[in-house]
Amino acid sequence: MSSDRLIYLPLGGAGEVGMNAYVYGYGPPGEERLILVDLGVTFPDMDGAPGVDLIFPDIAWLEERRDRLEAIVITHAHEDHVGALGHLWSRLRAPVLCRPFTAIHARRKLDEAGQDERVVEICQPWPEMRRLGPFDIAFLPVSHSIPETSAIVIDTPSGRVVHSADFKIDLTPVVGEPFDRALWEEVAKPGVRALICDSTNVFSPEPGRSEASIAPEITKFVAAQEGMVIATTFASNVARVKSLAMAGEAAGRSVCLLGRAMRRMIEAAVEAGVLTDFPKVVSAEEAADIPRENLMLLVTGSQGERRAASAQLSRGKYLGLTAEEGDTFLFSSKTIPGNERGVLNVVNAYSELGVDVQDDAGGRYHVSGHANRPDLEEIHAIVNPAMVIPMHGEHRMLREHMKLAEENDRPSIVAVNGTMVDLSGNRPTVTDHIEAGRIYLDGTVQIGAMDGVIRDRLRMARDGHVTVTLIIDEDGTALGEPWCDTIGLPETGSSRAPLVEVIEEDLSQFVGRAKRKTLGDDETLEEELRRIVRKTSDTEIGKKPQVTVVISRLS
Amino acid sequence: MSSDRLIYLPLGGAGEVGMNAYVYGYGPPGEERLILVDLGVTFPDMDGAPGVDLIFPDIAWLEERRDRLEAIVITHAHEDHVGALGHLWSRLRAPVLCRPFTAIHARRKLDEAGQDERVVEICQPWPEMRRLGPFDIAFLPVSHSIPETSAIVIDTPSGRVVHSADFKIDLTPVVGEPFDRALWEEVAKPGVRALICDSTNVFSPEPGRSEASIAPEITKFVAAQEGMVIATTFASNVARVKSLAMAGEAAGRSVCLLGRAMRRMIEAAVEAGVLTDFPKVVSAEEAADIPRENLMLLVTGSQGERRAASAQLSRGKYLGLTAEEGDTFLFSSKTIPGNERGVLNVVNAYSELGVDVQDDAGGRYHVSGHANRPDLEEIHAIVNPAMVIPMHGEHRMLREHMKLAEENDRPSIVAVNGTMVDLSGNRPTVTDHIEAGRIYLDGTVQIGAMDGVIRDRLRMARDGHVTVTLIIDEDGTALGEPWCDTIGLPETGSSRAPLVEVIEEDLSQFVGRAKRKTLGDDETLEEELRRIVRKTSDTEIGKKPQVTVVISRLS
Repeated sequence: MSSDRLIYLPLGGAGEVGMNAYVYGYGPPGEERLILVDLGVTFPDMDGAPGVDLIFPDIAWLEERRDRLEAIVITHAHEDHVGALGHLWSRLRAPVLCRPFTAIHARRKLDEAGQDERVVEICQPWPEMRRLGPFDIAFLPVSHSIPETSAIVIDTPSGRVVHSADFKIDLTPVVGEPFDRALWEEVAKPGVRALICDSTNVFSPEPGRSEASIAPEITKFVAAQEGMVIATTFASNVARVKSLAMAGEAAGRSVCLLGRAMRRMIEAAVEAGVLTDFPKVVSAEEAADIPRENLMLLVTGSQGERRAASAQLSRGKYLGLTAEEGDTFLFSSKTIPGNERGVLNVVNAYSELGVDVQDDAGGRYHVSGHANRPDLEEIHAIVNPAMVIPMHGEHRMLREHMKLAEENDRPSIVAVNGTMVDLSGNRPTVTDHIEAGRIYLDGTVQIGAMDGVIRDRLRMARDGHVTVTLIIDEDGTALGEPWCDTIGLPETGSSRAPLVEVIEEDLSQFVGRAKRKTLGDDETLEEELRRIVRKTSDTEIGKKPQVTVVISRLS
Repeated sequence: MSSDRLIYLPLGGAGEVGMNAYVYGYGPPGEERLILVDLGVTFPDMDGAPGVDLIFPDIAWLEERRDRLEAIVITHAHEDHVGALGHLWSRLRAPVLCRPFTAIHARRKLDEAGQDERVVEICQPWPEMRRLGPFDIAFLPVSHSIPETSAIVIDTPSGRVVHSADFKIDLTPVVGEPFDRALWEEVAKPGVRALICDSTNVFSPEPGRSEASIAPEITKFVAAQEGMVIATTFASNVARVKSLAMAGEAAGRSVCLLGRAMRRMIEAAVEAGVLTDFPKVVSAEEAADIPRENLMLLVTGSQGERRAASAQLSRGKYLGLTAEEGDTFLFSSKTIPGNERGVLNVVNAYSELGVDVQDDAGGRYHVSGHANRPDLEEIHAIVNPAMVIPMHGEHRMLREHMKLAEENDRPSIVAVNGTMVDLSGNRPTVTDHIEAGRIYLDGTVQIGAMDGVIRDRLRMARDGHVTVTLIIDEDGTALGEPWCDTIGLPETGSSRAPLVEVIEEDLSQFVGRAKRKTLGDDETLEEELRRIVRKTSDTEIGKKPQVTVVISRLS
């Protein structure tokens, strides 16, 4: 019994914003019973992972121990918390626990992946507790930017742990439960061993603002517009979509939802009973017949995604609707770092159409769903834990959050993905480092981030590709000359002759001079041909391309 | 005479931030004598132009008319104004006019490109005028973030034009000439037909702040640090580098410049006589022997560039120096849109080393070099032109700047790259659209942005590449089976067998069944083999790769 320990092991989300996945364990070392909190995705970019569709945490460690996994607990329905569930569930096969609104999304994800959605079990919020091996867990409602977000209370023989999930302190969240200080104080009362806490906004020095604070600004803005109003926000921010829709209705406009995610989220929120009094909406077909000054479109694509409704509309027509001079586009959202170019492309496309674009005006039309620095201090004070483990954030955020906790004499630690932390003692202690990487969903296949596929693609993207083919006769001599095909390379280089011909000439000279032994050894021959292609290309065009050599031997 | 006209034609910089290149012409339509103001570059990114080194404006239109080109006038030494000079000068072969500090950079660029640097002619500032065909031009000093920036006064038989260049209104710029209102009023006095004006900061609502205003903040910050201080800014911002160095000196620290651009810029500024009283610097070797609390490093890489000193130091050692826990890194710069991920990567790398990172703190440690909205209004008022043409900026900026001008009853227009505008009348009038694109420097070769090379590379980056080889015998039948090689694709797909084998199997079946006629026709055969590779890959891995088919016919 005395050798039992309580461990925390982030597999994703610690050292980055995205793909949240946190393991908790309790039991004798190496035999802990486990739960997994969240199983999210990260979105790839051209710089790091071209052609990749989604990025998942590497769950190999957990998969090997899945006989010890009691459950997968989902805190809320954001993609970076639930997005990998459908893709990875079959490797873990544990029950999935969440609240009703989140369950709608979790079930759809399982269903789309061909899994049995019945593994999702709906839980009611605190004080309902759920026994999971050595753990008792409860869903503790907390405000965020999507309905029914919950912190997870994890009771263990070593004491109580509170996993904050993504959260803010919002007393008037428009949709869903306000932050309930009394409830949190009740949870904190028996004493909390560790608070594992959202870090994403630790660098924001001002107290967070309520979702309700921007509705009047949005209403005023929409009322002041003369042409059609198009507004975008994160589709999952149901409260915001409602505020926008009500602003439209108040201005005498018909509201039309464009983009699958937008319609899905509103439908799910109505179905789960968390959204009521949403204005009546019109279809795109109906919208096309409504005078534009009486119309408000709520569209997906706040991050400039090329295929989202906002981008499509900016390029011309979308479902029979057009944006025109005199219309206004409102970003009721902020741009996530890395998406700036995409967003600005959309803004400039609207500018070319003569559409005025309004950004969030420094927060007038958008508030964050995460706890700012003073709110983090407040939650530390309310929960009053013996230690604080910064969770969900880039390294700089985790480190700053650790310093904040230590300023108030709470032991803390920076634990990035793969760091196993023992929470049983007086302060957090690193007990192990496990392999924690990224898995790419590439088309329909899951590949390891480090297994070379993407590295090769990045090389072809930078340096182009050359195919060399050579046929070796039955008697071991070259049959004809080597051939060469290029992709992604200029046609001519410094010598002004076609690049292909210059390379083929150098290859032919080599083959003509090559010894029988060289021609007989595939490996040497391939290496030599590759070397010549790269050298000649470098001279001609200043680049060393990727090379595929195909040697065909007649026999 | 009455048919002569005055034209303005941006080839780069209008509809984007970067690669500035503006043509002015005067004379009978189609026979105007021309000058080119600036010849800059844009920096590529992985999303749009992987592997590309630099982006230039397409100067084909101007090259075809180079017998009419009187001169290339360079306003200042920023890369987006002078960076393409070395690469493109040989296609234009006109005299290059600029002031002494700019000339040092222009000459180096020509020299590095193997051109004769003596084509650069140094001009003295206003009131010195220079006759260029029908034009008289003068360099009118203006404040910006690099020394000796000059607006260009262009006198023509149709009246005076003022090309603002990049500028701000700074009365205390630390290094270089303060904004001289009296001088600008003198220029404006005879009446100005058109102001062609920098638009990049039109969305910044506050009046711009002086370069001198941040020096005390920087000094205070550096004095408060205990470990080594590392600071970065744009190397070309000589005034800032001086402020940083003086803050280091005031704190009793030895100053060390790291990164070629940083050293080059300071040397050029001293050589041109625009920089005086720069603190004594130590070499990296000397710095290694100085206690870290007495050391301040000024490093290149404010935009997170992977090879710059800031990034190298964040990854470990650089020239024998290391960053350690207790040190501080200061960004005396802002992040240019699109560079956010790179900058954050550097920040997080320092965080991992235990180094505290300070950003510009919302402007406390950085000011922009461009005129904000109120400053634009002020320059409009001082110059009092009959029309305002917004220049240098994304479409949304040009449009906003046009609206600003029109609010004050000055005729204006949005003229993006390739739009020829007649400035001779009462208001700007579009007279022509010419082909104005981008040229990529790819390795050592210049390629057109639209000619397919980059498109193919982006496709390979997203979808990988497959090579298929098939040998056809003398009698027109397949010799052996088709072969297949892949790059940038997963090894196995949905059927769990090696992807290469599954594709080869499908190709073999096709070849086995194929009619003699099909096997005899290269084009059909190639198309069919490609189709099969893409279809099978799509089934197996959910991707349609790029395919090279090589058919070898024995004869």
